[in-house]
Amino acid sequence: MVQYQAHLDTAFAALSDPTRRGILVRLGRHDASITDLATKFGMTLTGMKKHVSILEDAGLVTTEKVGRTRTARLGPRRLEDETAWIEMYRTMLEERLNRLEDFLERTKEK
Amino acid sequence: MVQYQAHLDTAFAALSDPTRRGILVRLGRHDASITDLATKFGMTLTGMKKHVSILEDAGLVTTEKVGRTRTARLGPRRLEDETAWIEMYRTMLEERLNRLEDFLERTKEK
Repeated sequence: MVQYQAHLDTAFAALSDPTRRGILVRLGRHDASITDLATKFGMTLTGMKKHVSILEDAGLVTTEKVGRTRTARLGPRRLEDETAWIEMYRTMLEERLNRLEDFLERTKEK
Repeated sequence: MVQYQAHLDTAFAALSDPTRRGILVRLGRHDASITDLATKFGMTLTGMKKHVSILEDAGLVTTEKVGRTRTARLGPRRLEDETAWIEMYRTMLEERLNRLEDFLERTKEK
């Protein structure tokens, strides 16, 4: 039985946008303020806040406000369940392909 | 430089919905017609067709029409780039955490 994992919804949805993946790569180099990120990605502050908020809700980014500056950094989620899910998909696919191959082999022999 | 990979957008978006993940798990057991899937998930045929179409566009499901029945099966994509992307994220996160730890250690020593 596969349990429903709500965090898979938010994490996969967060990762489905190229700008958001770009933000994560950027934060992999160093922490950055929302303003810096907006400038870097040629985006309005409002647009960037929305992307960062989606990443934050998915646990891929943490933000902290010091004075007037909100800084974003990677984490805390390590996406282990997401990796496990994709691996399960790949295992299922391989099993299906093997069974199809067996079936074709048996059909050929007849 | 991280290249823009459009198939990451469609695959992650396809995986962000619990019903679509459920369909993949179901197809992992055996191929199924769209009608069977709609019944199984208590959904209209139109609703199911939409989900299957999103999975098909992402390369996670292949459909074939024989007579009046359209059958869905897993594949052909193995989601290797998606796994690689998540692994890259995790490596970046670990490096950031290690650097933060080093910084805290050095600060403590002073």
